[in-house]
Order: sequence, then C-alpha cells, then structure tokens
Amino acid sequence: MKICTSITDLRQSILDIRVKMQKPTIGFVPTMGFLHEGHASLIKRARSLDDVVIVSIFVNPLQFGPNEDYNRYPREIEQDEKLCEGLGVDLIFAPTALEMYGADGCETSIHVAYLGDHLCGASRPGHFDGVCTVVAKLFQIVTPDRAYFGKKDAQQWRIVRRMVKDLSMPVEIVPCEIVREEDGLAKSSRNVYLSPEERQEAVHLRKTLLLIQDAAIKGQRDVKQLKSLALAYLADHPLVALDYLELVDGDTLQPCAAIRGEAPTLCAIAAYVGKTRLIDNIELELRA
Amino acid sequence: MKICTSITDLRQSILDIRVKMQKPTIGFVPTMGFLHEGHASLIKRARSLDDVVIVSIFVNPLQFGPNEDYNRYPREIEQDEKLCEGLGVDLIFAPTALEMYGADGCETSIHVAYLGDHLCGASRPGHFDGVCTVVAKLFQIVTPDRAYFGKKDAQQWRIVRRMVKDLSMPVEIVPCEIVREEDGLAKSSRNVYLSPEERQEAVHLRKTLLLIQDAAIKGQRDVKQLKSLALAYLADHPLVALDYLELVDGDTLQPCAAIRGEAPTLCAIAAYVGKTRLIDNIELELRA
Repeated sequence: MKICTSITDLRQSILDIRVKMQKPTIGFVPTMGFLHEGHASLIKRARSLDDVVIVSIFVNPLQFGPNEDYNRYPREIEQDEKLCEGLGVDLIFAPTALEMYGADGCETSIHVAYLGDHLCGASRPGHFDGVCTVVAKLFQIVTPDRAYFGKKDAQQWRIVRRMVKDLSMPVEIVPCEIVREEDGLAKSSRNVYLSPEERQEAVHLRKTLLLIQDAAIKGQRDVKQLKSLALAYLADHPLVALDYLELVDGDTLQPCAAIRGEAPTLCAIAAYVGKTRLIDNIELELRA
Repeated sequence: MKICTSITDLRQSILDIRVKMQKPTIGFVPTMGFLHEGHASLIKRARSLDDVVIVSIFVNPLQFGPNEDYNRYPREIEQDEKLCEGLGVDLIFAPTALEMYGADGCETSIHVAYLGDHLCGASRPGHFDGVCTVVAKLFQIVTPDRAYFGKKDAQQWRIVRRMVKDLSMPVEIVPCEIVREEDGLAKSSRNVYLSPEERQEAVHLRKTLLLIQDAAIKGQRDVKQLKSLALAYLADHPLVALDYLELVDGDTLQPCAAIRGEAPTLCAIAAYVGKTRLIDNIELELRA
C-alpha cells in the first residue's frame, strides 16, 4: 500500500498502475479519516468490485461552517493507514489543505439546487457546496470508475449522484448500507465526541426512526401524525435536541404530507446530543 | 470529419481514436457555433498543437439571462461544418439542449467567486456560472489535453482557467488573440445583428480602447482621467450606449485606481449598439 500526500505523486502512481495492469477499474472511497466500520464496509465493497482501491483521507475545510467542528474533528492517520492496509487498499491519498487548495484557496464552488434545499442543506448552509467541490476535485485527480458513499449521509450521496449526472462525470456512485453499533447507533467519526451518558442517549435517534417505521407498517400514513409520535418520544429524552425530523420523497428529497405506497419515502433525523450533531435515516418499509 | 450529436457517440468516437492512435493529445474548441475567423484561429492553433481537434457547437441556454438573446442567437450548422472540415477538424460535437441536460434539466452549477464579481459578471448575473457549468461538463465528455478560448472574452478564459486550477482538471487553457475586422471591430457572432449604420458605429468600442491606450502611452496613469477621456469620446457617438468601461488588474480583474507599471492592466468595454451588446478589451501597453 502506498501513501501519497501530493496530487502529482498520486497522479503518477495511478498512471503507473494503469500501465502495469490491463485497464483496471478504480474504486474510490473518499473519507475524512478517523475510519470506522462504516468506512471499512465501503472499502470492502470497493475491493469486491474494483481492481484498484484508492482511499482519500482529507478533512475538507470547505464543508464546515464557521461555527462547526473543523478544528476539533478527530484525526488519527496512523490508525487509518493500518485499517486500510488490512483491507487491501492499494493507495491512500492524504493531502494537506494547502496541497489541495493552494496558498490562494479555492474560489470555485459547485452547487446542486433542489436536492440541497431541505434537511442538512437547510441546517448547514454551504455544506453540500463544499462536499460537491471537494468530491469533484478528487474525481479529477483519482479518475475513479466507481465511488462509494455511505447511506448515513442520505442527502450527500444523492446530491453527488446528481452532480455526476449533470456534469457527465464518468463515474458510478455506489451507495452502501449504514453500519451500526450493537444498540443501533449509526457508526460515525463524531461518536467519539460523546460522553458515556450522551452515548447512551444517542441511540434515541435510531429508536425514533424505528418508532416511525413501526407506525407506518401499522398503517399510519399522515406525516404530521408520524412527526407528533416522534416528538412525544423525544420529549422523554431531553439530552437529544432535535435539529430536524423530516419525511421526504426518497428521490427528490422534497417534504411530503403523506406517505404514498408508490414512491419511496425517506425519514431523516438530525439531533444534537450534548454539543455533538448526529444524523441518521431510514428508507421506510410499509409492510412488516 | 465525424459529427456526433450524442454524448455516448462522442465518447465512443474518442475511445476509438485513442485506441487507433498512440496516446494522441486532444485539442478542444468549445463554441456556440455561427463560426467566424475568431473561431477559425482557435481551431488552427489547436490543429498546430494537438493530434486530434474536437469542436463543440452548442448554444448553451444556461449562460443566457431571461431577457437575453438565447432564442435569436444565430445558428448556421451547415456552414459551421464546412468551415471545420476545411480546417481539418476531426470531430464535431453538436448536441441538442435535451441531449446535454436531459428532460429534467441541470440542477448543478459552478461558481467562481472574485474573478466573476466585476465586468460582465456584474452586468450578466449567472452568465459565468452557466459558462463554467457547460465547460466543466464538456471537459468531462471530451477529455481534452488543451482547450482554446478567445481573448475577446477576457473574463471568460480567466474564470475557466481558475476553475480548472481549483478543481484540478487535467487540461491546459490556451487563450488566443482577438481577431478583428479590417476597421478594428472584434469578430463576434453577434455582429450579424447590427444594421449597416450600427455596424459603422460599432468600431467605436475599439477606438475607445485605443484612445485609452494612447493616453496611457503618453503617461496618463490615473484611471478616473482615462475614463473621462473615453466618456467624452463616446458622448459624440450616441448610438454606442456604454454598459461598462473598466480598468482592472489583468490577473485578478479587480478595479484599479491607477495603472502601475509592474502589473498588467486590462481595459475592458461592453456597450450596446442598438439592441446588440458587444464587448472588447485591450491589455494595456505603457510604451509605444
């Protein structure tokens, strides 16, 4: 496994691989590091589908708001390298922000309208522009055939997929299932922020989603009613401060008033547990 | 010369060429068609530097404002094809808007801050976002090594070059000199809109720039004074309605108060002649 920190070095390494192997497919897992089993599942999926697997580790300043956790976002590059090595990753790309954006920064931004209007797009202005910009740039450097994204960031992979379609980028977006802790909490690098007490309470994001899932299976289709159920549940867990709970069309991410059988519905939640913002979501099943 | 109207067909044709030739360089000239000698000079430049020359002909709706001339923009595809054939173009890409953006349109847009704040960026909100978006998409499809842009659009090639740098696109932007009519009017597809009388008056854009050039050579460095000269001149030519006349830093495109010897200064003009908006510019020389 090779570790590249410069764009030039990575490009040359990929060129070397392309020459050595006969038309290899390249699978790419873009991450912000502090890798957990969620990332591992993306890497395994890439390993199973592609000839070459490249992982980027880059805490991207563009996607953090001014009052967000860019500076304290957890970093543990040596541990990440071991995990990648163990999973058979071929190349790690771990640039600095200076290497990525240069001394004069990045004046270019990519915006995807519509899909980004609600959910995290409303709570974190500019966040998805930063994600799209870094992902587009990484795609230019890595030239992947497939890129792997976790479904925990339900909005992110859909927005990236739309950007790829709109800009005719020659890459397939592969969304991968959420990986969870035993009690159901979605794996996240930010879980490390949680105190033991907060960690216990964090499970209520998932439990809220399951409550809505249950009610939907039992026949409740009205979004207001479903939200009321959730709010009543969360009222008993004051350590969980809701940012949003939305039921949206699974394709367009636009809010819906009622669940309809013919279109997929996504139920997405974001909440602060202490100072830590966590997200989770479920693609609603209407039958048990 | 082959003419492709679909993205799939173009991609396949490029793939075929890449297999047939040994690592050819691809030169790309993106145009909106109605080709004139300005475009021809770009194509010739590409022909001299690259192994394969691809010209796109696409009137891009994204870069026109709601009250601009998208619908009446001149189109003459057969004439364009003959000109390209004569210049040794290998491939023309001439898609419809439906082929480019699909039935559900383009939700993605690319914005370059700072460079786009003044000049045409101020006069035509959203214009450069539309340019960047289509150019980025065309780059993904055509995969050029070099792309050729005319210097008449002084802001455009600088913005595209910045986008390419920020997003690490593997393409070199080659700006090419302005081609002019005998009387000095910059060649433009929009010149066809001009009535005979307007055509005569249109030369005053260029003459205004030369007036400023002369005064600069004679030692005038104060931008206010230079602008006053120009306004006085244009006052005698009421058919030319000034949109802007700006002296800006040639690298950053930010307005400057005085010309300084050490940094290049760009003098850019936009004006309506009748209903036709024309632009021109000059990179100021300070010595005769």
